[in-house]
Amino acid sequence: MEVLLPPSLQSLLKTLERLPGIGPRSALRIVQALLRRSDLLLQLHQAIGAVVESIYSCPVCGFWVEKEKPCQLCEDPRRTDPVLCIVKEVADVLAIERSQAFNGRYHILGGVLDPLAGVGEKDLRLAELWQRLQRENYEEVIIALGTSPEAETTAYYMARRLADWHGRLTRFASGIPVGSELSYVDPLTLSRSLRERQLLSL
Amino acid sequence: MEVLLPPSLQSLLKTLERLPGIGPRSALRIVQALLRRSDLLLQLHQAIGAVVESIYSCPVCGFWVEKEKPCQLCEDPRRTDPVLCIVKEVADVLAIERSQAFNGRYHILGGVLDPLAGVGEKDLRLAELWQRLQRENYEEVIIALGTSPEAETTAYYMARRLADWHGRLTRFASGIPVGSELSYVDPLTLSRSLRERQLLSL
Repeated sequence: MEVLLPPSLQSLLKTLERLPGIGPRSALRIVQALLRRSDLLLQLHQAIGAVVESIYSCPVCGFWVEKEKPCQLCEDPRRTDPVLCIVKEVADVLAIERSQAFNGRYHILGGVLDPLAGVGEKDLRLAELWQRLQRENYEEVIIALGTSPEAETTAYYMARRLADWHGRLTRFASGIPVGSELSYVDPLTLSRSLRERQLLSL
Repeated sequence: MEVLLPPSLQSLLKTLERLPGIGPRSALRIVQALLRRSDLLLQLHQAIGAVVESIYSCPVCGFWVEKEKPCQLCEDPRRTDPVLCIVKEVADVLAIERSQAFNGRYHILGGVLDPLAGVGEKDLRLAELWQRLQRENYEEVIIALGTSPEAETTAYYMARRLADWHGRLTRFASGIPVGSELSYVDPLTLSRSLRERQLLSL
């Protein structure tokens, strides 16, 4: 009977339940941990307050930046490859950066087209992308939105839209993850990695 | 490379990772959800702020109460059974209240004795309990701390400490959960529910 709880706690529980991966039980566990240790509660409050005040989305690439500071990714002069990599969200940028294999710039779309979930063209940073491709000079655009059906549809839509664009349009290779056993790989991935097989170069 | 993120976001991620059930990946997913929807970010900030300002622990039972308001559980005149139920945490009170089967009062211990984890007598609300049992009139104390080894040890410790107390000392019955198949019940539970079998009353 959560009605027993004071209203401010009920509203905190409800807000926590709106976060991804948090249900009623984990929300209650989190609140218990916060109230057991008031330093943690205060620290969380201050950390969120600082983010509310200082973080915004870079108007160019969509990465998270601190107010009054240039975007680390857009302003970095060492990123010299004339390649623009289009990803779904910030976590994708972090994952690609961890690989240390990319030296171009990013454009965060903020999601993929998903009519059933009500995500249309206007909910994504597509207009910003078309403008950016006119304004900045790239020789290649990598569409790296993942391999869900919605992502593939979005990639297809963007490819059609960019048909007249002068540069190359690419996507990340699909295939067997490094370190995987062949027998554990799903059939679709296997068939793709067969179709896109590469010459063994010594 | 989370070093790419602005410092205030890094500190929010670190704080979130200190909450139960949240690791680096889920912290990042939560931050993404919060930054995608600034209303949610603000709402969470305000909800936590309200809790910081208004919630404290009832000095008698340990339940969460709003400042300046009496504790719903301690002050409810309809709770007339002279029985004190000792539980580990607030979630236990909520679970028992959902059963609508208990009409006494609660005492939240705040944990169980766990020397390996550094939880000693002084970290629990034990002193408050001894005082309470002298001050208030109960005929029965139910020790309902669960069935982990630490909980059983704590219950044993409390039972020894309360040996001279005038009332009855009980614990919740162990047994087969209602609706369970016998063949799925673990051996320990099964042996307990055999030992504590009840007369079939028609």
